Amino acid sequence: MPKIQDHIPSVDGFRVAGVATGIKKSGDLDFALIVSDAPCAAAGVFTRNLVKAAPVLVDQAKLRKTGGVVRAVAVNSGCANACTGQQGMDNANETARLIAEKIGCSEDEVLVMSTGVIGPQLPMDNIKHGVDLAIDALGDHWEAAARAIMTTDTRPKLAYHSDDAATIAGIAKGAGMIAPDMATMLGLIVTDSQLNATHTQDYLSQANQTTFNSIVVDGDMSTNDTVLFLANGLRPFAMEKRQHYIDGLHGVARKLALDIVRDAEGASKFVTISVRGATDNPAAHKIASTIATSPLVKTAFFGDDANWGRIIAAMGRAGVDVDPMRVSLHSAPGEQTVPGDDALLLFDGGQPVAYSEAVATAIVSEDAFSYVITCGDGPGHAIVYTCDLSHDYVSINADYRT
Amino acid sequence: MPKIQDHIPSVDGFRVAGVATGIKKSGDLDFALIVSDAPCAAAGVFTRNLVKAAPVLVDQAKLRKTGGVVRAVAVNSGCANACTGQQGMDNANETARLIAEKIGCSEDEVLVMSTGVIGPQLPMDNIKHGVDLAIDALGDHWEAAARAIMTTDTRPKLAYHSDDAATIAGIAKGAGMIAPDMATMLGLIVTDSQLNATHTQDYLSQANQTTFNSIVVDGDMSTNDTVLFLANGLRPFAMEKRQHYIDGLHGVARKLALDIVRDAEGASKFVTISVRGATDNPAAHKIASTIATSPLVKTAFFGDDANWGRIIAAMGRAGVDVDPMRVSLHSAPGEQTVPGDDALLLFDGGQPVAYSEAVATAIVSEDAFSYVITCGDGPGHAIVYTCDLSHDYVSINADYRT
Repeated sequence: MPKIQDHIPSVDGFRVAGVATGIKKSGDLDFALIVSDAPCAAAGVFTRNLVKAAPVLVDQAKLRKTGGVVRAVAVNSGCANACTGQQGMDNANETARLIAEKIGCSEDEVLVMSTGVIGPQLPMDNIKHGVDLAIDALGDHWEAAARAIMTTDTRPKLAYHSDDAATIAGIAKGAGMIAPDMATMLGLIVTDSQLNATHTQDYLSQANQTTFNSIVVDGDMSTNDTVLFLANGLRPFAMEKRQHYIDGLHGVARKLALDIVRDAEGASKFVTISVRGATDNPAAHKIASTIATSPLVKTAFFGDDANWGRIIAAMGRAGVDVDPMRVSLHSAPGEQTVPGDDALLLFDGGQPVAYSEAVATAIVSEDAFSYVITCGDGPGHAIVYTCDLSHDYVSINADYRT
Repeated sequence: MPKIQDHIPSVDGFRVAGVATGIKKSGDLDFALIVSDAPCAAAGVFTRNLVKAAPVLVDQAKLRKTGGVVRAVAVNSGCANACTGQQGMDNANETARLIAEKIGCSEDEVLVMSTGVIGPQLPMDNIKHGVDLAIDALGDHWEAAARAIMTTDTRPKLAYHSDDAATIAGIAKGAGMIAPDMATMLGLIVTDSQLNATHTQDYLSQANQTTFNSIVVDGDMSTNDTVLFLANGLRPFAMEKRQHYIDGLHGVARKLALDIVRDAEGASKFVTISVRGATDNPAAHKIASTIATSPLVKTAFFGDDANWGRIIAAMGRAGVDVDPMRVSLHSAPGEQTVPGDDALLLFDGGQPVAYSEAVATAIVSEDAFSYVITCGDGPGHAIVYTCDLSHDYVSINADYRT
C-alpha cells in the first residue's frame, strides 16, 4: 500500500491558490485555481444525474473537443451553477475565458467546477474578482485551495503521495454546503507523471470505481459531482512502473473518498459494508449500497444499535438475486472486509444465531465498525464506505433558511 | 367519490377482537383476531422483499393451496417473526392451527400477520393465551383490533364505507414499531359482498397500486408488508354495481394508506408528489418515488424550505429518461395533482423562473402541500404521498435501545 500524507508540500509544474471572492457571505475562501505550467493530459469522471450543472456540461464538451488537454481548473463554492439554463452555460464559459486570457492558453484548456446552492446564477463580478486575486496568489497553496472548495465540510481534504516514480496529489470536498442543496463531491488530482490522455482516463476510471464511487452519504446523486485527473508529464512514463502509478492514484483517491465519509454531514460513525459471495461484483455493489443508503440502517448506526434485521431486510430489497437461506452476517470492529478473529456472527443460513448482545453493542458503539455479508459462494464482492444518519444531518439539511 | 368514515360500527358476518397478551412489555393491546362466520373469498398483496417473514410465506402458501378461502386472520404486533428460520414457520403455522381448532375450520383457512422486531421468535405462550382471550372477546371490536396491530403508530387506522351495494371496512398499521425495525405496513379489508377469489385479487391489486403502493415513508421495504381482502358473500354480487365495489374498496384503501403517511414516524408534513407527462405510468411512479425517498428533499420539507433544486436533482437520478429542458415544477397548497390557480411555478424549461420566495416558503410551511412535476407531453402520470424526514424520525429509529 502506498504511503499517503495529509499535507501537500508542492507538485512540480503546478501552482495553486484559494481566495475569498464574497460568494460565501461568511467571507471564507470560496474560489480555487490550479494552473499547470505545461499542458496536461487530463480526464474526468462526472455525475450520471440527467440534470447536469453547467460546469459539468462545459467540462465534458471541452474534454471531448481537446481530446483531454488542460492547463487550468477553477473551482468555486457557494453556488452550484446548476439548473441555470443558457446563462449558466455562458457564465461557466466566461469564467474559463477570463482565466485563459490571464495565463495565455485556449479557453478550451480551462475547466471549471462549482458547488453550492442549486438555482442561482454565478455572481460574475465575484468570479472576475476571484480570477484576478487567484492569479496573483498562485503558489504552493494547496491547503487554501482545499479550503476554498469546502461547503458544509468541516475540514479540508488533501492527499499526497510521492516516490521515485511520480508525485500524485489531490484535493476533494464532500457532503453538503453552506447553503446545502446536494451532497456534492468534487475532486481534483494532479501528477507530474507523463501519462497520456488514455492513461489518465483509464487509471482514473479504475481508481474511481472502488473509491469515490464506493462511498455513500445519503444516496442523493448531485448535479455537480466531478473528479478530474491532470498529468503534466514532467517525469517520463516508465511502463515497468505502471502498477506504481495505479496504486499511487488509488491511494490518493481512496484517502480523499474516505475523508469525505468521515466528514459527511452530521456523521459520527465510519462504517464499512463488505459484501462477498454475490453472483458478480455489480450485484455485490448493489447490495452494499442499498444497505448503506437505508435510513433505518443508518439511524441504527447512529443509535449504537446492532440491529442486524434491518441490514438483512435492506439486502432483500436490493433488487438482486439472493437466497436468504445462504446468507451470513458478521459485525466487526474497525474496517474489516473479511471477518477476522474478533468478528461476531449474527445471522447464518437464514436464521439468527446465539450471540452476545453486549459484544454486538460494543462493536457498533465504536466510531468505526464493519458489517460483512456473505451471500453465497459466487465470485462477486464489493465494499462500500458509509456513515450514520444523525440528528445533525437533519439539522444541517433542514435548518439553513430558518 | 365514496364517503369513507373513520369508525367501523360492524360488518355483517365478521367478529373481531383486540387483546393484550404481554408480547408488548407495555401491556398494550398486541393481538387481533378477525373471524368470519362463513368461508370468505380472499386475496392478498405481499412484500416483494426477498427476505420474507414467516407469516408472509405461510399466507402465500395457504392462499395458493386453498385458491383463496379464509375463515380467520390473526395479527400480532411486537414481534415480526422475520429471519426466524424453520422455527418461525412452525410458530406461524401453530398460531393458525390453534385458531382453526377453536373455530372449527381447516388450519389452511386461517392466515396470520406479524409486525415488530426482526429476529426474535414468536413467544408462543403469549400467542396461545392471546388466542384464548380473543376467541372469548369476539364482537364488533374493530377499534381494539386496529389498536392491537399498532407499533409506533400514534393512533389506530380504520376506514368504513357502506351503501346499498356493499359494506367495506378495513384496518391498517403503518410505519414503525415500539421496537422499530421496519416501516411495516399491514392492512386487512373485509366486505360482506359476494365477490369470488378472482374478484378479490383483481380489485385488491388494482386498488393497492394507487394507494398502499403509492406511499413512501423512508423507502425501506419491510419483510412483513401484507394487505389482505376478505369477502364473506352475505350480499349477492351485482354485475351492474361492479364499479361501486371497486370505488368503495379504493376509497377504503386510500383512506388507510393516507392515514399511514399522516401518522408516519416523526412526520410533520403530508406531501403529494404528482408527476405528469412522463413516457409512461411506471416512469412517472419511479420519478415520484425517487423524489419522495430523497433524504435531502425530505429534510427540506421538514425545514419549511422551498428547495426545488433538490427535487429536480432527485428527478435526474431516478433512472428514467427525462429531458431536463422540458421539465416544469409547481408547488401548491394542500393536495393538488394538477397545478391549480394558487400553484406557484418554480422552474420551467430547464431554468429557474422569477417567483416570490415568500409565497414559496408560505406554501411549504403548511402541514400539507404538493409538488407537481411536468416532464414533457407523454401519457405517464403518477401520484405518491409522502412525509418529511424529521429529528423525531431519527430519534424513534435510533434511540430505542438507549
